[in-house]
Amino acid sequence: MDPDAVAKAFVDHYYSTFDTNRPALANLYQDSSMLTFEGQKIQGSPGIVAKLTGLPFQQCQHSITTVDCQPSGPSGGVLVFVSGNLQLAGEQHALKFSQMFHLMPTPQGSFFVFNDIFRLNYA
Amino acid sequence: MDPDAVAKAFVDHYYSTFDTNRPALANLYQDSSMLTFEGQKIQGSPGIVAKLTGLPFQQCQHSITTVDCQPSGPSGGVLVFVSGNLQLAGEQHALKFSQMFHLMPTPQGSFFVFNDIFRLNYA
Repeated sequence: MDPDAVAKAFVDHYYSTFDTNRPALANLYQDSSMLTFEGQKIQGSPGIVAKLTGLPFQQCQHSITTVDCQPSGPSGGVLVFVSGNLQLAGEQHALKFSQMFHLMPTPQGSFFVFNDIFRLNYA
Repeated sequence: MDPDAVAKAFVDHYYSTFDTNRPALANLYQDSSMLTFEGQKIQGSPGIVAKLTGLPFQQCQHSITTVDCQPSGPSGGVLVFVSGNLQLAGEQHALKFSQMFHLMPTPQGSFFVFNDIFRLNYA
């Protein structure tokens, strides 16, 4: 398992799914998954996806600036740390954000998002 | 174990140690610890502390803006996600940064930093 390859593939998939078909993010979370979004804590795939699809914008585009990753320990997890810009439709300026994911392996040989923490970086 | 209490105590201790006695950060890392600092990967407490003490500034002050945390899984780890400002002595403007830590429990009932990823947030 190459953490860098896992992180890159995940980041590409996650943000392209977010920007084109947000409800499909449900497949990346499980009942045990945790999201902290701007300080609000939500657990479980249905609640997490309800939060993400309910954000007050329809169209957006993420541009990724940096991706860092490390193995999280003996259970085969991967930590992914992302910074980037979030452009909302109709807005002049992009929003800067930082986000971290803890990916855990599934029995099927894939990964799901166990931990997700998102913050806007205000100037 | 209350992850919020662990995170708060860790963040207070980590940044006050960084700003007043950087070499003492060695106590918070172990040989297995990983640091990714602005994309540079370093493993093990001696190398990590050499990197942090060798940064090209002597005096600095961290101001923390947000602290988020989540349990990382059954092994008792805690993920801590921090954003804040780093003021260097003699510089007019503070630098914005984001940093994540994965704290793992020690047999002695404390925690050490297993994962550490640091990024400046350029405007």
